[in-house]
Formats: sequence, structure tokens, C-alpha cells
Amino acid sequence: MAYRAAVAGGSGYTGAELLRLLAAHPDIDVVHVTADSNAGAKVTDLYPSLAAAYPGLTYAPMDPAAVAGLDVVFLAMPHGASQDFVPHIIDDVAHVVDLGADFRLPAATYAQWYGSEHTAPALIERFGYGLVELYRDELRTVDHVAVPGCYPTAALLALAPLFAAGLVEPHVIVDAMSGVSGAGRGLKIGSHFSEADESVVAYGLLTHRHTAEIEQTLTKVGGAPVDALFTPHLVPMIRGEHATCHARASVAGLSTASLLATYRDFYAGEPFVVVSDEPPPTKAATGANTCQVTVRHDDRTGRVLAIGIIDNLVKGASGGAVQNANLLLGLPETTGLPIVGMWP
Amino acid sequence: MAYRAAVAGGSGYTGAELLRLLAAHPDIDVVHVTADSNAGAKVTDLYPSLAAAYPGLTYAPMDPAAVAGLDVVFLAMPHGASQDFVPHIIDDVAHVVDLGADFRLPAATYAQWYGSEHTAPALIERFGYGLVELYRDELRTVDHVAVPGCYPTAALLALAPLFAAGLVEPHVIVDAMSGVSGAGRGLKIGSHFSEADESVVAYGLLTHRHTAEIEQTLTKVGGAPVDALFTPHLVPMIRGEHATCHARASVAGLSTASLLATYRDFYAGEPFVVVSDEPPPTKAATGANTCQVTVRHDDRTGRVLAIGIIDNLVKGASGGAVQNANLLLGLPETTGLPIVGMWP
Amino acid sequence: MAYRAAVAGGSGYTGAELLRLLAAHPDIDVVHVTADSNAGAKVTDLYPSLAAAYPGLTYAPMDPAAVAGLDVVFLAMPHGASQDFVPHIIDDVAHVVDLGADFRLPAATYAQWYGSEHTAPALIERFGYGLVELYRDELRTVDHVAVPGCYPTAALLALAPLFAAGLVEPHVIVDAMSGVSGAGRGLKIGSHFSEADESVVAYGLLTHRHTAEIEQTLTKVGGAPVDALFTPHLVPMIRGEHATCHARASVAGLSTASLLATYRDFYAGEPFVVVSDEPPPTKAATGANTCQVTVRHDDRTGRVLAIGIIDNLVKGASGGAVQNANLLLGLPETTGLPIVGMWP
Amino acid sequence: MAYRAAVAGGSGYTGAELLRLLAAHPDIDVVHVTADSNAGAKVTDLYPSLAAAYPGLTYAPMDPAAVAGLDVVFLAMPHGASQDFVPHIIDDVAHVVDLGADFRLPAATYAQWYGSEHTAPALIERFGYGLVELYRDELRTVDHVAVPGCYPTAALLALAPLFAAGLVEPHVIVDAMSGVSGAGRGLKIGSHFSEADESVVAYGLLTHRHTAEIEQTLTKVGGAPVDALFTPHLVPMIRGEHATCHARASVAGLSTASLLATYRDFYAGEPFVVVSDEPPPTKAATGANTCQVTVRHDDRTGRVLAIGIIDNLVKGASGGAVQNANLLLGLPETTGLPIVGMWP
Repeated sequence: MAYRAAVAGGSGYTGAELLRLLAAHPDIDVVHVTADSNAGAKVTDLYPSLAAAYPGLTYAPMDPAAVAGLDVVFLAMPHGASQDFVPHIIDDVAHVVDLGADFRLPAATYAQWYGSEHTAPALIERFGYGLVELYRDELRTVDHVAVPGCYPTAALLALAPLFAAGLVEPHVIVDAMSGVSGAGRGLKIGSHFSEADESVVAYGLLTHRHTAEIEQTLTKVGGAPVDALFTPHLVPMIRGEHATCHARASVAGLSTASLLATYRDFYAGEPFVVVSDEPPPTKAATGANTCQVTVRHDDRTGRVLAIGIIDNLVKGASGGAVQNANLLLGLPETTGLPIVGMWP
Repeated sequence: MAYRAAVAGGSGYTGAELLRLLAAHPDIDVVHVTADSNAGAKVTDLYPSLAAAYPGLTYAPMDPAAVAGLDVVFLAMPHGASQDFVPHIIDDVAHVVDLGADFRLPAATYAQWYGSEHTAPALIERFGYGLVELYRDELRTVDHVAVPGCYPTAALLALAPLFAAGLVEPHVIVDAMSGVSGAGRGLKIGSHFSEADESVVAYGLLTHRHTAEIEQTLTKVGGAPVDALFTPHLVPMIRGEHATCHARASVAGLSTASLLATYRDFYAGEPFVVVSDEPPPTKAATGANTCQVTVRHDDRTGRVLAIGIIDNLVKGASGGAVQNANLLLGLPETTGLPIVGMWP
Repeated sequence: MAYRAAVAGGSGYTGAELLRLLAAHPDIDVVHVTADSNAGAKVTDLYPSLAAAYPGLTYAPMDPAAVAGLDVVFLAMPHGASQDFVPHIIDDVAHVVDLGADFRLPAATYAQWYGSEHTAPALIERFGYGLVELYRDELRTVDHVAVPGCYPTAALLALAPLFAAGLVEPHVIVDAMSGVSGAGRGLKIGSHFSEADESVVAYGLLTHRHTAEIEQTLTKVGGAPVDALFTPHLVPMIRGEHATCHARASVAGLSTASLLATYRDFYAGEPFVVVSDEPPPTKAATGANTCQVTVRHDDRTGRVLAIGIIDNLVKGASGGAVQNANLLLGLPETTGLPIVGMWP
Repeated sequence: MAYRAAVAGGSGYTGAELLRLLAAHPDIDVVHVTADSNAGAKVTDLYPSLAAAYPGLTYAPMDPAAVAGLDVVFLAMPHGASQDFVPHIIDDVAHVVDLGADFRLPAATYAQWYGSEHTAPALIERFGYGLVELYRDELRTVDHVAVPGCYPTAALLALAPLFAAGLVEPHVIVDAMSGVSGAGRGLKIGSHFSEADESVVAYGLLTHRHTAEIEQTLTKVGGAPVDALFTPHLVPMIRGEHATCHARASVAGLSTASLLATYRDFYAGEPFVVVSDEPPPTKAATGANTCQVTVRHDDRTGRVLAIGIIDNLVKGASGGAVQNANLLLGLPETTGLPIVGMWP
């Protein structure tokens, strides 16, 4: 018998992606979908792509009572909304999987980077940080998960082996590129086709909030404080995220070959991480829950260059959420998740 | 126990798409992949997207002996190649599913449109025309299938209900648009990014070979000779095909509402066809084996306008191939096939 | 000494394109730019591309008094707005060049297709229809011009030689494809990058308002009533418009060669029209005020196929506007207008 | 009377872009165009966009005699070809403007990064390095120019003010993104539409040859040896280049405001450089010879972030070439060069 799930905030892109992935999941049934602003609309009005799988499904208004008793509730709401919603449901559902940023950071760090006090700080510790490859043990001890941000997912999987092995200095530069879907379905001029197409632009200079997640996890993995300068760029594609990461080597004798071997050891057995000799294109992960990484040592400058790519909506959001749900429900982590990217 | 399959010609886009789809198919295992020009290469050298599912798979050279005894052999070879290959395997494998054009038309029609004599005319009648929704009964009587061309798939599913009901004159105009993946992986200036991007161009004016399939099937469905003027256009996207079809109404009293009802009756129960009130975007089918259609009656000009959209690589090629393989193997037609498009 | 011009409605895409073109025009100076909703903003806040040419320019509010006495006022306002604005300026400026739809059609036809009564019907006859290649003589007799719609520009230049020579039946089918910039700068879900990219969709089925312009001009050119079924499609590129046009031949003995010769005669000496043997890609006109056309006779079906391509924002809007302004001001038609497309 | 020019290697993208720009140049006439592999073809066969300006122009074979006596010869040949061609023409033409890499570096540095010995080392010193904004005085003393690479153009204009003022440490990281046109018109799988579209990939890791130009000029501007780690990325657009540059501040008290002021002073009066408060999108320069830059000081990490954007085919190649030709011919630098980008 399948587990019963709800998608709260199903009218945005991560919500729609959850519906796409769960339509092919053998053990999870979507029994309820909510969307405040689109309540009453058919999901196929917004997403004709869902017509064959969810022909009659309609968005319900947000109502905690409607999800009580479910096995898993995915929250795909705007950032800031889940801290208001979670207190109403956390004790009435088996598992909350939050795709937003509200339960990823300690309250003080959250306030620093998000500019407002957290309204449910006592609940933060009930959530694990759902970067499964780095936090699997901790995640077995919690009931609820905060899915990492898309950029941190790519950057952290690219950088973690270096910090785990103590090979680089604790200062990183991350220049990342994201497809426009990362900005969501909400209308804004920067996501307007004629503005975003055929253009690259940096944004969030010095202040992007994902910096906090990058620093937090690298500090944990490496065991010493790390600072990061993170600069995201919008590139003219729908999906895909590319993190180009730099740190100065802190030990002698490194080589590209030795680093690739370190990475292969670190990710041995991980079903969703591929260590690639060649620079991986983001297209390798389109539609799939995979992350591909590579690494180089530059003998000329003494720097290490690490690259990670994901599909921001899958491994960077909804696929990561399903992976976590599988873990929480005791299913194989790969259940229902595509591992082959759509190429071409 | 799973059926054992080979993909012959696996280095092109339809071959890679077969590998993507079959990686998620519960009842078909790919045990052999061939590619003449790329023999010896790893599939992941060409398609990094396949790394997590086929980490060690290597393209073998084309060899009939290597596929003998298999349950199904998919031929994803260049047009014209399968008529040379099929005679060597047809009696040694249970089912051949040919994605090329060689076994779709009678020998005389083939010669007329393809400009050369067919080299294995006696084998043509052993193949059914795999447009399942229109030929399902005939397909139950054959062992082998020629998968329809991508354009005919979209145009015929859009037009068939009109001809089945005798509502239009037997002269059709089809203006179709295809993503660039339809031109394959082979390098040519028209598929070069900087030439194809940000541009639309018509091609194959008056002479595109898919015209023959459109005329053949509409003639069969309508019971009287049909002529078609088919004009394809290349549009700057990877996947997706849009057929905009015109015919003059031949009976009085039609309306858009009556036509939509006719279409809904005609496709009732079809798992892969959605009749839509609104004009369907090609994105509704990206990555999925679905076709969406709509129809209009123009009271001003007395014409009927019918639209069909598909993913050219899925329903228009590799997905249609898997659907036919399911049918031939006695599996549910939908086994292993995605029905939700990737949106965004 | 340069002519003094204003751009009213300069914050939309046709307004910005006027500013781009006029920055390189040797004989017209932009002395005033207005934009109601963006009044007070710097033009470079909306269009960083204009920074080197208009570093300090600010949008003024719409005010008839501010344009009084100018040589030419370009109206790049939303459809429906110019009929309210023109009465306040038409007697105080030398020339009005309206890029909107308000002065292209007789009042009755306007009401039929636009769904509301025209508020300044008496002024319509003071405007010429600015498809210069077909209306040059009439345009020499007027002071003001209504620039044709983008689709009509492409379709009419493709079809006019057929109707001028009486070669086809008076029933046409036009399937046209436009880049997304045609939908303007206003935010809407259909122009959202992740929705529009990698997709084709038809819209405005049976009812697109440009139908009226197509019928009106073909009727005039051919001398008998013409009906048109016009279906536009949105394709994932910024600029470019492709009109694929069909009509049944009404005289015997036509051939592709004879039709191409007819077209070359018809457009001999036109600086902005290229008759091409091959199907012209829209990219051939990107950024330029050119139209390229080709034509075919299909012996199999007795139909004529005519194709026209333009840049919707240049020849289909702002470039056409400048061409008309040149004509009105007595300048060479080509002054300041690019005739080379940006390729790649 | 106009200067007489030739374009040698006119069938590639930089050659075509020279033809586009020179078609609108009032003082330079193109009297000869060569292309070895396409000799005999009409330029409009390759570039329909040129039809209205160069209706009959045909590519001639490469022949030094044919350019003798001309005022300026633009070399838009593949890298490595101009060192073989220049010795045959340099004493017979007034000015050579080479868009290739052959005359940008001293012979030893050339051999180190390009992997082969230079065949005309004695001629290198007769060429100036055509980054006009940084080398204008030197350029007044030479007859011939090597146009800088596209990436160096963007990165150097972004970084130069920091090194000129001695504000950062001599170690830079440059992560750059380029449109696919930078890879040229030659067919290769990485430029195939279905591979390049909807994907980002890094390439040339650690070894891209433009590194040498970046280090050479920063060393000159700053007066001390600089090392650079340069990583280019291919992004799915045709034109545009974005350089994101990092260096550690070497003096105390810097702020974003002080750095922006430094940049405004440094580029005061430059017609082709815009210092922007906001991160400039590459679209701001599409089709234009402008470069836009911005800069930030990160108080958290003590780093300076500098960004530069250009159109790789204009300011990064053919536009820069025309700017240099203007300088060499004694014309105003801006003659015939667009400064407004095509937006949208």
C-alpha cells in the first residue's frame, strides 16, 4: 500500500516538479495539492504537461486540517511561508519535507541572512539538513527535513571531499550559474523571455542568502570556520546549475589525478553522484536527480578548482525532497527517481 | 524475468532516447548496444547523461549474430540502413522495432519519395505501421513494427478524427514546426547553434518525405485518396513538434464544440492522447510519450483547423517504439513510459 | 540641421527599438521620450543597452504640449491608446507615425475586430497605411502614417505579387511564427522565460486581429474580396517573424521559376525586400529593416506557397516607422536604417 | 574618398561581422573578401543576412597580390594562419589588423601557450596590442594591430583600474562565460544546437590560451607579475561574454563606492566603456562595441569582485578591429560603430 502525501504550494515550479516525479513513484500517492493564490484552479490550467496523469486534480486552499494524518507533506511554498505553516501541522503528520529555506539554518544565522527573526525557532532542531550524501547519519535520527538550496547542493557536493580531507584553505570562491527556472514561476522582468534569453547577468552580489548554507556545511565538514564569496549568475536556459568553486591548496603534492581519486573514494556507492574526468555539462542532469562533479589542481597557481552540476529543480529541490522522503519512509533512496538526464 | 533487448544504432539521438526510456522500464533490459561509427566508444563519452545508469556500457560494432535470440531489437539507424540490416536478423529475433523509414511504405511509394528502390521489398508486409492509436488491431497481427515518422505522428493524430468521421475535404495543408533534435546528432550547418538559435526557417518545401505517410494514413482512415501539402519548419528548441493542419469542411453544421466532442469520443481511453480545449504547447509533452490535440471550426472561412503536439524524440520516435514493443510483448502499453511532460 | 522627434511610449520594446535606430540616424534627433507608467525613470534603468547613447535621458510623462512643434512624433503606445492621444497633437506636429493599430483600418472594420468603437473615426483618413512597398504613392499624399502590424508586413509582402498579378484564388491560409518580443515588455505568463523557452504554441485561433489588415490589403491589391485564415504561433526566440502563406493557383501554367521571376519584377529596386531562391531564415533580418521572401508552385496539389520573413521589431514596427518618417520628411527611405541582419 | 579595405578570412563569424559593421561605415569600403575553403561561394550563400548590402559579392581565394596597395587588411583567419600570411603582405599594405592570436604575445610566450614556435617572430614587434583603452598611446606609434582576444577584452577592462591603482594582490581568478559564437562557424559537437542549448559547461580547464594575455596586460598595467586562473564556460546564447573576476584587496579602506569612483575616473571620456552601478547583463552590449563594467568590495572576505561584459564578436573581435582601424587611419574612433546594444 502506498504512502499518502500532500504537496503544499503546488502551483510553483518545485511543486509542479514534485507532481511530475511523484506521478512515476510506485510507493507514494499524492492525495492533496494546495496553492493559496491558485486555489480552485485545475493543475492542468497551469501545467498542461500534467494532463495525462492528473486530469481532474484541482488546487485546494492551504488548510492544515486537510493534511493531518498524512505520511509526508512536501512544502513547496515561497521562502518564509513554511515557518508559519509548520507549527500547525508538524505534530499531525509523520514527515514534513520543506523545500524552503526556513529550517536550514540556526535562528541567529537565519535572521542575519534573511533579514527577519524566525517565527518558529524552537522547531528548527526537529529538521535535519537534507543533503543526504553528507548528512545521511544525522538524517536517520530526525522526522523532518529541510531540503538544501539548489546552489548549496551543487557547490557543497563539489567542495565537500576537499574539506573532508583537509586539502584546502578555508576560503572559497563560488561562481555559479543557474537556469531561469530557479527564479520561479512568479512574473518579474528578469525572468521575462526577451530579457533573460541571450544574456548572462550576475545578481545578488556579495549578499546571496545561499552563502550561509555553503559556509555552514563546509565548516561542519572541514571542522574549522570557512568563509565563502558566492556569486550567482542567471544564464539563458530553463534548468541546470553549475558551480565553479575555487580554494587554495593547503597541502603539498596534490595533483588532478590524486584529487579525482579522492573524490571517487568519497562518493563510492552514492547512487546520485557521478565523479567525471571531464567537465560535466549541466545537461547531463536535466530532469534527473544526479549530481556530477570534477576537480583539478592547478600547479601554476596552487589552486584547486572543483565543479558540480545538477538540475536545480530535481537534485536541487524536488528530487532531493523525494530522496529525503524515501529515506524518512524507509524506502530505497532511489525509488521513483530518474537517474538518466534528458539528452538532447 | 525481463525481456532482453538490443538497440542498434544507439549513438544517435533516438538511440540515446531509447536508452533513457529503457533505463526506467521494469520489464525490458538492454543487453546490447551497437553503433557503427562510434563502435568502441563508451556511451557516456557521447552522453554523459547516461553515466549513472550505464556506467560501463560500450558501443559494439553492428553484428547480426550479436542480437540473435533477443526478444526485441530496436533499430535506430540512419534512414536507408535498416533495409540492409533487417534481412540478416528478422528470422532470428522475436520482434524488430524499426525507427527508420524503410518499412513504413509500400515499395513503390518508398521509391517515389525516397528516390531509390527498396532493397528488401518482400519484408515490408511483415511490418505493421506503428501508429498504435490508429492501427492497434492490425498491429496485433504482426511481429515487427515500423515506427511512424515524427511529423506524421503529430499530424495524423490531429487529423484522423476528421477523416474517420468524413467531415472534411480530402486536401490538407500541414505547416509543422520541429525542434532541432529532429535533424539528429550529425553535424551540419543548419544544426549549428549559432545558425539555428534565434531563427525559424522552412525546409524541404514541397518534397518532404513524410508527406507520403500523411497521405497514406489519411487515405486509409478516410477511405478515399487524400493529398497533402506539408511544410516543415525548424524552430530554435531541442525537442517538440507542432503540426498545424488545415482542411475545408465538407459537411454543414460543424462547430468547434461539436468537433471537440468528436475528438474526445475518438480518443476515449487512449492513455497517450489528450484532447485539449486550449491550443497545446509543445512543452506539454517534453520528455513524455503523450500527444495533445485540439481542433477549431472557422465559421468565417469554412475551414477546420487541427493542431497536434508531441515530443519528436518520444512519441515521435523512441517512446512510440517502446509503446509498440510493449504491445508486441504483451505488456500494458504504458509500461515504463512517462506520461508527464517536463514543465518547466 | 536635424529634424526633431519625440517617442511617445518609449518604455516598451518598439519604443526602445526606435531609440536604438534613431541613435544611428544622421538626420533625426530624439528630443523627448515619454512613458506613462515609467515616467521619471531613466531609460537606462529599463534598457542598459542605451547607456552609451542616452546616458542621462529620463522618461517624461505623456503631455501633448511637450511635443507641439516637433517634426515627427512616433507613437509606440499600447494598442488603443493612440486614438485618445492623437486628437491632442495632430494639428500641432508635422507628422505622426503611429506604431499601434488605431489608424490602420476603417472605423467599422476596427470595431468588428477590436471589439470597441473607435473614438476618433474622423482622423483615420488622415493616416496612410505605411506598408511603403505597396502604398508608396498614397503615402506621398498624407501627413501621417499608421505603421502596419508585424504579421501583416511579413504576410502581405509575401503574398502581394500573387494578388497583383491575379495568380491565385482569393482564399489564403497564413501560418505565422513570431519571436516572443512581439508580445511586448508587459509581464505575462506566456512570455515568462521558463514557459516560452523550448516550446511552440499557437494562439489567437480564428480571431487574431491582424487578419483584418491581411484581408484589407490583399483585397485592395487584388481588386476582389479576399478571406484569410490566419494562425500565429509563438516560438522560442526574441525577434523574427515567419509567414508561411498558402493559396490555390487560379491560372494554369505556373511554375516555381515563373513565380520567382514575377516576384523579382515586382520588387525590383526595393531597397528593403530581397527575393530569395532558398527559404529565408528569420535570422537573415535580425536587427535590420529587410524583408526576405520566396515562393513555390506545387504541381502535385495546385497550390502556391509563399514565405516572408522580417524582424518583427524592425521592419515589422520601429524600422518600418523610421522608413515612413524618412518618406514623410523627404529623406531617402534608407536613411539611418540597417539593411544587414545580425548573423550569427 | 573612402579608404579601401579587404577582409581576409571572411567566411567565419568574425569575418561576417566585419562585413556587417563595415556595410554601415561611412569611410571604409570593402573591396575584397577572401575565404580559402569557401572560395567561389557567394557571401550570401553563407550569410543570407548580407543579401541587401552585398548582393553579388563572392569569396576570392587567399592571394597576397590581391590586397597589395590597400589601406587596411583585416585578417579574420583561424588562429595560426596569420603568421604565415602576414609576411607576404605587411610591406605592401598600409595597415594590417589581425583578429587572430598570432601577434599578441612575445614569441616565447606564444610558444609556451600555443604549443608551437612562431614562424614570423621578427614581425611581432611591428604590431601593437589593440586594447585601445589601455594601449592608446602605444598604438599611435605602430602601423599594425593585433586585436585582443574576446575573453581578455572583457576581463582586462574589468580588472585594469584595480591594477592601475595598485589596489589588489597580483593573483586573479577569472570565471568567464561566452556565447557559442565564440567557438566559430566550424562544425563541432560542442557547438551542435541540441548539445549546446539548455546547458552550461566549463572547458579549457587550467590551460586556456587567453590566460597569457590576461597575465601579460595586468602585469604591464600593475607593474608587477600577475598570475591568473582563468576558466571559461560555454553558455547557451549566441553572443555575449561575461567575465567575473576576483582578487584580494591589498590596501585597507576600500569600499564599493570608492571602487566605483575609481572606475569612473579611469574610464572618463571613453566612448565604448560604461561603468555601471548594477551588474551589467551581456545583452546590454549585443551588437554594439561597448563594454560595461562594475565592481564590488566584499567587506566580509576582503575580496574585490569585478565584472565586465562585451559582445564577443563586436568589442571582443570585429568591432575592436574597426575601432583600431579608425585609430590607425586617423578617423574618430567611433566612426561607423554602434554603441547601442540590441535589446531585446
